Amino acid sequence: MIHFKAIGKIMGALLMLFSLLMFPGVGFALYHGSDDLMALSISVGVSFLTGFGLFSTFSKQDQNIRKREGYLIVSLSWFLMSIFGMLPYILSGAVESIPDAIFETVSGLTTTGATILTDIEGTAPGILFWRSMTQWIGGLGIIVLTVAIFPLLGIGGIELFVAEAPGPTSDKLHPRISETAKRLWMVYIGLTFLLGIIYFLQGMSLFDAVNHCLTTMATGGFSTRSDSMAYFSPFIQYTSIIFMFLAGTNFTIIYFGLKGKFNRVWASDEFKAYLISVIALVFLLVWPVWYYSGEGFEKAFRDSLFQIIALITTTGYVTADYTAYHSGLTLVFFMFLFLGASAGSTSGGIKFIRHLTFFKNSWLEFKRIVHPRAVVPLKINGDRVTGKIVTHIMNFLLIYLMIFVLGSIIISLLGYDILTSFGAVATSLGNVGPAIGRVGPMDNFAFFDPTAKVFLSFLMLLGRLELFTILVLFTPYFWRAN
Amino acid sequence: MIHFKAIGKIMGALLMLFSLLMFPGVGFALYHGSDDLMALSISVGVSFLTGFGLFSTFSKQDQNIRKREGYLIVSLSWFLMSIFGMLPYILSGAVESIPDAIFETVSGLTTTGATILTDIEGTAPGILFWRSMTQWIGGLGIIVLTVAIFPLLGIGGIELFVAEAPGPTSDKLHPRISETAKRLWMVYIGLTFLLGIIYFLQGMSLFDAVNHCLTTMATGGFSTRSDSMAYFSPFIQYTSIIFMFLAGTNFTIIYFGLKGKFNRVWASDEFKAYLISVIALVFLLVWPVWYYSGEGFEKAFRDSLFQIIALITTTGYVTADYTAYHSGLTLVFFMFLFLGASAGSTSGGIKFIRHLTFFKNSWLEFKRIVHPRAVVPLKINGDRVTGKIVTHIMNFLLIYLMIFVLGSIIISLLGYDILTSFGAVATSLGNVGPAIGRVGPMDNFAFFDPTAKVFLSFLMLLGRLELFTILVLFTPYFWRAN
Ligand SMILES: [K+]
Ligand SMILES: [K+]
Repeated sequence: MIHFKAIGKIMGALLMLFSLLMFPGVGFALYHGSDDLMALSISVGVSFLTGFGLFSTFSKQDQNIRKREGYLIVSLSWFLMSIFGMLPYILSGAVESIPDAIFETVSGLTTTGATILTDIEGTAPGILFWRSMTQWIGGLGIIVLTVAIFPLLGIGGIELFVAEAPGPTSDKLHPRISETAKRLWMVYIGLTFLLGIIYFLQGMSLFDAVNHCLTTMATGGFSTRSDSMAYFSPFIQYTSIIFMFLAGTNFTIIYFGLKGKFNRVWASDEFKAYLISVIALVFLLVWPVWYYSGEGFEKAFRDSLFQIIALITTTGYVTADYTAYHSGLTLVFFMFLFLGASAGSTSGGIKFIRHLTFFKNSWLEFKRIVHPRAVVPLKINGDRVTGKIVTHIMNFLLIYLMIFVLGSIIISLLGYDILTSFGAVATSLGNVGPAIGRVGPMDNFAFFDPTAKVFLSFLMLLGRLELFTILVLFTPYFWRAN
Repeated sequence: MIHFKAIGKIMGALLMLFSLLMFPGVGFALYHGSDDLMALSISVGVSFLTGFGLFSTFSKQDQNIRKREGYLIVSLSWFLMSIFGMLPYILSGAVESIPDAIFETVSGLTTTGATILTDIEGTAPGILFWRSMTQWIGGLGIIVLTVAIFPLLGIGGIELFVAEAPGPTSDKLHPRISETAKRLWMVYIGLTFLLGIIYFLQGMSLFDAVNHCLTTMATGGFSTRSDSMAYFSPFIQYTSIIFMFLAGTNFTIIYFGLKGKFNRVWASDEFKAYLISVIALVFLLVWPVWYYSGEGFEKAFRDSLFQIIALITTTGYVTADYTAYHSGLTLVFFMFLFLGASAGSTSGGIKFIRHLTFFKNSWLEFKRIVHPRAVVPLKINGDRVTGKIVTHIMNFLLIYLMIFVLGSIIISLLGYDILTSFGAVATSLGNVGPAIGRVGPMDNFAFFDPTAKVFLSFLMLLGRLELFTILVLFTPYFWRAN
C-alpha cells in the first residue's frame, strides 16, 4: 500500500511554496504594465488554492513517508510543478500550444534551457521572469534532492561523494532539512543575490540582471535576449564564466571555500578533476578556435572559455557558434554535453564524480588483469569506494548512454536527421540547452513536432532526476515492495 | 625480464604456418596464368624463410611463457601477420601505397572486411584469394585466442561463458591445444568446406565459392564481387544468411547441436538472446523496409534479414543499401555495429554475452535500489556471475564506447564529417565493414588519407583483440610485472 495521503500533504505544501515563488512575476507585470498581469495572477491563485486544498485535506493524516513514497514524491513534485508552471504561458498566450508549454516549462524546471520561444524580446516581462524563475526553482529543488533525498533513496550512486550528506538510514524516511541543506541554500541564495548586483553594476538593466542571476546560478541558461550572453559586454561575460563555474561546483566545497578552509576544497578529487579539466580543455581548444574563428586572441580565448564552461556546467548560455569552426571541433563540443560538472551543484548531466570513478576503476582494471590475485581497491577523496558503488555508477553511465541511443532512434524515426536527433537528445538528457545539427547554439526547438517536444521533455525530467528515480517506477520491484 | 626468445620461437612457428596458408594463392595464380604469380611466390618464400630463421634460432631456448609473454605474443602475432600479409599486395602492385596495404591486410586479418580496392573484378585472382584467406586465418586465430589464450590471460571478461574453456591456472602458461580447441577448429574447417560445396552447387563459380566460404565463416565480408552478395541469386543469399548466423554462434554450441544435444544448445543464455534478437529485429524492421524500399515482400524480407544478420554477426556482406530507407532506420542499422554476435564465434564487436550481462545487471540494480540490504545475485546460464566479472564487463563496454568517441574525434579532426567519422570508427572497432555517412554499404575506404587508414587499422586490431590485450601493453602494470 502506497501512502498516498502523506504524498498529497507534501504535494500541497510544495504547490503553495511554488505559487509564492511565482508571485514576483506579478510585480514585474505590474511595474511594466504588461498584459501578462492577469495570466500570472490567475496562475498564482490557482496554484496556491490547489496546494492549500491538498494540504488542508491531508494535513491531519499520520502516514509515514517511506522509501517508496520518496520516489513518488520526487517524480510527482517535478510533474506537478510542470503542470502548474505551464499556466502562465498558456493563459497569457505566450506559447501557442500545450506541447510547447510543456516543453518550455519542463525545460525551465529541469534547468535545461532549451526554448521554443522564437521572439524572446517580444515576450511579456512577467512571463520572461517566470521562465527564469522556473530554472531557479529547479536549481533549488535539485539541491534538496541531492542533499536531503537522494542519499535516503540510494539514487545515482553519487550520494556518498556529496560531503556531509546523511547516509541511508532505516526504511522510514524522515526527510528533515539538515543543517547541511540549509547551508547550501544560503550559498545558492547568497550567490544569486551577489551575482544579480554584479550584473547590474556591470551595466545590465535591472530586469536582465534579475533574470540572468537566476538562470546562471541554476545552470539553466534561459536568457531574456535572443542573442543570449553574446548580447552583453565582455566584462559581463567574464562574470558569467566565474559564476557558471561556481554554480557547477559542489556547494559544500564553496561553503568551505567561503570559510577559508581551502584544504577541504583541495581534498575533493571531483573538484580537482573539474578545475583541471576546464583549464586543460581551454588550453587545448583556444588555439584552433583562434585559428578557425579569425578573431583576436582575447575574443577567441573568451569564446573558448565561455563555451567550454557553459557546456560543461550544463548552463548552455552562448556567446559564439561552436559548430562553425570545424567538424572535429563541433564533435568535441558535442561531447561536452556528456560531461556535466559536480555532484551537489545545480548542474545536470553525468557529472565528474562518475567519470572519475570510471576512469580510476578502468585504470585499476589493468592492474587487476596483470595481478589477478591482488586486492586493488579504488579510492576517491582518500576513501575506499566499494565495488557496489562502482558497479552502480558504471551502470548509471551505461544506462545513460543507452537512453541516449534509444532516444536518438525515436527522434530520428520521427523524421529528423541523425545529428539533430543526437543533439536534441543529448542536450535534453544532460539538461544543457544547445547542441548540434538543427539544434545548434544559434537555433531553437520550435520546429519539432508535438510528439518530439513531449518526448524531449520526458528526457529532461529523466536526466534531471538522475534516471533511476523515474525508471524505478517502471519496474515491478517498486510496486511489489512492502 | 620479458622472455623474448620464447616469443621469437613462437613467432617463427606462426610465420611458417602463415606461409603455408598463403600457398594456395600461388595455385590460383598458376591456374589462371595471372601476373600475381611472382608476387605470391616471393611472399610465401619470404614469410617461410623468416619464420624458419626465427624458429631455428630460438628452437633450443628453454624460457617459460608466462602471462606477460602471452599478451605480447597475441599482439605481436597479429602485427607480424599484418606485416607479412601485406607482401602480396605490395609486390603485385594491387594496391598503390603502404598505408593502403596496411589497411587491406589488417582489415582482412581482423575479419573487418572494409576495403580500399576500387576495382575488385579487375584484381588478380591470386591476390583476391589471399585477401579472402587473410580473413579465414583471422577467424582461425580468434578461435585459438578465445578458447586457448584469453582464458589464461583473463581478457575480455567473457572467458567464463565460452563453454568448457580452461580456467585461469598458475602464472606459467602452458598453452596446450586442448581437445576443445581442436573440436572447434573441426567445426570451423568442416563448415567452411560444406559451405563452399553448397555455394558451388547453387551456381557460384569455383573461385567465388572458395572465396566466399572463407569470408563467410570468418564473418569477414570480403567479396570477389564489387556488388558483394547482391551479385548472387536469392538462394545463395539465403545460404549465406544461414552460415553467417552459424559463424556468429559459439562454436561449442554448434558442436553440441551437431551431436544432437539440443538441451545444451538451449541452456546457453547468449545463444537464446542472439537468436531471439535476430528474429525480433527482423519482425520489427521488415515492415518499414518493405514500405520504404517499394520492393516485393520477399525481397524486403530477405534484404532485412540479410542486412540484420550481416551487421550483427559483423560479417558485413551487403545486398541492399540500408542507409537509403529513412534516417531513423539508418540509425537503427548503425546501432547494430555495436552488437556483435557470440563469444566463441568468429564475430567481432561487443557480443551478446556482454550486452546480456549488462541488461540483466541493470534490471537487478533496480531491485538492489528498492531492497538495499537484499543479496541480489546475477545468473547467466544458470550460474552465478561474480561482481568482479560484472565490473569487468561493464568496464569493457564503457572503454569500448570511450574508444569509439575518442576515435571519432580523431577522424573528424582529420577533416571528415561527423557521421562518416562515427561510421568508420564504429565499423573498424567492431570489425564489421560497412557503416554510414561516406562509408555506407555501397562505399569503400579508398578516399581516407594515409593517417586515417593507419589509425582505422589500429582500431580494427584493438577491437579484434578485445581491447585489453593491446591496451595493457600501454600501462606501467604490464612492464613492471615480474
Ligand atoms: K542548462
Ligand atoms: K566483417
